[in-house]
Amino acid sequence: MNGFVGEFLGTFVLMATGTAIGAGIHLNKTNNSHHDDWYLIAFGWGVAVTMGVHVAGAYGSLGHLNPAITLPYAICGLFPWHQVLPYLCGQMLGAFLGAVVNMIFFWPQFARTSAKEGNTIGIFSTVPTIRSPFFNFFSEFFATFMMVLIMLNLGNFTQGLKPFVVGLVIFLIGAGLGTTTGFALNPARDWGPRIAYTIVPLPHKGSADWAYSWVPMLGPLAGGLAASLLQVMIH
Amino acid sequence: MNGFVGEFLGTFVLMATGTAIGAGIHLNKTNNSHHDDWYLIAFGWGVAVTMGVHVAGAYGSLGHLNPAITLPYAICGLFPWHQVLPYLCGQMLGAFLGAVVNMIFFWPQFARTSAKEGNTIGIFSTVPTIRSPFFNFFSEFFATFMMVLIMLNLGNFTQGLKPFVVGLVIFLIGAGLGTTTGFALNPARDWGPRIAYTIVPLPHKGSADWAYSWVPMLGPLAGGLAASLLQVMIH
Amino acid sequence: MNGFVGEFLGTFVLMATGTAIGAGIHLNKTNNSHHDDWYLIAFGWGVAVTMGVHVAGAYGSLGHLNPAITLPYAICGLFPWHQVLPYLCGQMLGAFLGAVVNMIFFWPQFARTSAKEGNTIGIFSTVPTIRSPFFNFFSEFFATFMMVLIMLNLGNFTQGLKPFVVGLVIFLIGAGLGTTTGFALNPARDWGPRIAYTIVPLPHKGSADWAYSWVPMLGPLAGGLAASLLQVMIH
Amino acid sequence: MNGFVGEFLGTFVLMATGTAIGAGIHLNKTNNSHHDDWYLIAFGWGVAVTMGVHVAGAYGSLGHLNPAITLPYAICGLFPWHQVLPYLCGQMLGAFLGAVVNMIFFWPQFARTSAKEGNTIGIFSTVPTIRSPFFNFFSEFFATFMMVLIMLNLGNFTQGLKPFVVGLVIFLIGAGLGTTTGFALNPARDWGPRIAYTIVPLPHKGSADWAYSWVPMLGPLAGGLAASLLQVMIH
Repeated sequence: MNGFVGEFLGTFVLMATGTAIGAGIHLNKTNNSHHDDWYLIAFGWGVAVTMGVHVAGAYGSLGHLNPAITLPYAICGLFPWHQVLPYLCGQMLGAFLGAVVNMIFFWPQFARTSAKEGNTIGIFSTVPTIRSPFFNFFSEFFATFMMVLIMLNLGNFTQGLKPFVVGLVIFLIGAGLGTTTGFALNPARDWGPRIAYTIVPLPHKGSADWAYSWVPMLGPLAGGLAASLLQVMIH
Repeated sequence: MNGFVGEFLGTFVLMATGTAIGAGIHLNKTNNSHHDDWYLIAFGWGVAVTMGVHVAGAYGSLGHLNPAITLPYAICGLFPWHQVLPYLCGQMLGAFLGAVVNMIFFWPQFARTSAKEGNTIGIFSTVPTIRSPFFNFFSEFFATFMMVLIMLNLGNFTQGLKPFVVGLVIFLIGAGLGTTTGFALNPARDWGPRIAYTIVPLPHKGSADWAYSWVPMLGPLAGGLAASLLQVMIH
Repeated sequence: MNGFVGEFLGTFVLMATGTAIGAGIHLNKTNNSHHDDWYLIAFGWGVAVTMGVHVAGAYGSLGHLNPAITLPYAICGLFPWHQVLPYLCGQMLGAFLGAVVNMIFFWPQFARTSAKEGNTIGIFSTVPTIRSPFFNFFSEFFATFMMVLIMLNLGNFTQGLKPFVVGLVIFLIGAGLGTTTGFALNPARDWGPRIAYTIVPLPHKGSADWAYSWVPMLGPLAGGLAASLLQVMIH
Repeated sequence: MNGFVGEFLGTFVLMATGTAIGAGIHLNKTNNSHHDDWYLIAFGWGVAVTMGVHVAGAYGSLGHLNPAITLPYAICGLFPWHQVLPYLCGQMLGAFLGAVVNMIFFWPQFARTSAKEGNTIGIFSTVPTIRSPFFNFFSEFFATFMMVLIMLNLGNFTQGLKPFVVGLVIFLIGAGLGTTTGFALNPARDWGPRIAYTIVPLPHKGSADWAYSWVPMLGPLAGGLAASLLQVMIH
């Protein structure tokens, strides 16, 4: 139960603060008009993970906040299987609600931003800059592979200043490897808001682009699995 | 008495350094001409809180620096009632004097900046991008709710590098959730400078916009209370 | 002797890396063309102090790197008088040589930048945005007062991650309070490069502006003294 | 063997994340269009080193990731000679593969960016802003000298939060001293990608500019040696 509560609250913190950064940048009538402030996006999402991990840890979970960590760890024997379901449920529910709350939070801004001006699924979920099944999958696969490879060597995420270091990992991956597909790195982080965008009757709402959604689901899972297998083999 | 001195000095440090960032950005004839440097604003206010907490802690207070932390904590039994008054007085006085000193500091710049060019209450206190009682209140409520929810899970703010982590919380909230109302998150942080702006005979001074001031007062208090109640219930 | 070596090397590290940031921003034909990147300037000088403190500490000094810390501390009984001279000599020599080496380092860039394009004393030393003896002095006085007030409450600068926290103090002061006079905060940091600029036969060299130099000398010393006196009185 | 594996994986992490930042900035059709975001470049490469050191340390190496640290340390008796070859091989192989993987990762972007638009060796390796054998060599020599001088006084890179501090060193050097030659500071970091750029049949590929390559090889080695000798002499 601690696992569910911790992952739910941690992922909610991650998503309620993280998606707000995208909304603040892309929507009209906000204080931040830098439509292309990539440093803020990458560093902001990093610190969002930092705080999600802090909260998750305080409620007794390990601060995965990401099915692409939980599932591969379980497959490789690094995490107990009976905890997988509560972790995944907490992650998905937290990501969904974190996005829903920001759709209410920025409602007046959504009402004043047309689709052309940036009112699209890209505020909440990921969109590739160039559509290419192979390269999009490879982007999410490899970026998540690098993220998990580094995280596996950091020890327990929730201790001391480790949540800050985990945040710097997200920043680093986002800064460069995130510039092709917008760094989902995490199926819950992408699908939670995508489901919310589909359901919530937002003004000027566009397509939720489910045709692309297999990439941020399967790419991160495959990348996390590859990194975990490598770690088990060489350690 | 330690509580008063610590909160007074800590909030003075927070406000004397924090409001200077806004002044440097918005006024003419300063070194920083980026009128929309949201990262600097969010990260700068974060580090301002970091240093306020360091100083407050050294003088023996808990580094709240914020009535929206002190009052809800007391209501939920997380802070002794007899300390509430010295804390609140220290916070209000520190915020007021921190703003006053920057009105003197930037006097020549105020004299060279018209209201149209940005010489308004927005330099010191918060102003919403879209006027809407419900959504403005919800913004300050929810942003403060998230801030206090995270802070409640960080332990003692003043120990070790915790002040830095607290600063990152402010940065994170400001980066996204702060883009609709300018993230007061703290009645003292908003009202201290608003009172100062009303009293000090600044050149080209505009309205102190007291009509809006109930939002940064009641929103943060309600948000802090909701987070504290939630914490008490689920822990 | 440790005091001299540590302060010399630490201040050299501070100035050789810090003045390079200004040179990279202001001169033609460098990789960084953001002439007004105030965040980089404030954060960069902060990290320069961080590393100067690390090196100074490793060589056995306390990492003051600044006469406006050493002298006021001695006057208030917080630092032994017999160490003052070696500290001050190390600070001035390190600041001077750190600036000289960057005049050689960026020689080809100086040769390709006219005075109009930014080849002035402002690359190395401080220049106010508005000339006003009273307000310029007050700027340096108060900014240094805030800096030393915070630093006095951080404990030993050189232990653990304290050098990083000290760097964040510099960033914070520079970010806002530094936008009027360019945050000298330190007589050695301003006079070392000013002497170097006077002596070294740089291409397109302008005035070293000694008429202004009393401000970054006396302002920081007075501000450091006021903060130290306050600390002694209320502790 | 641990030395080889740790340096290989650490340098791979450094280069696979670091070169991606340059690719994201310079190539068309990425999320980051700030062609001159020097802060992101300097801070991003810093955090890339942070994570490389974390991973290297977890696999039992000292996290040099740089021949300009390993070789000078060995010459000065600060590192055992029998470990030098595995370290250097791991560093070169990791740097080469880290660059190769990003040439595949950004293949669709390379295909849509002409040489004129920034598709050049400069994405991966270093290029000076002004060609001058003496000043280019001096740039790489002195920047690496400063970097190693600081690093020698940080203790074991891989312990606690030291990898973060090491990352801040890279940021600091890059921020200012890196603006003339693009801060190689590391022969493996420059030659690994240069060899990859020569071999991999990238679309729109330009010259690998081997005529300049002696600078990022010999400059860092000489700078690292000078700093190590100085350290040995004065300690």
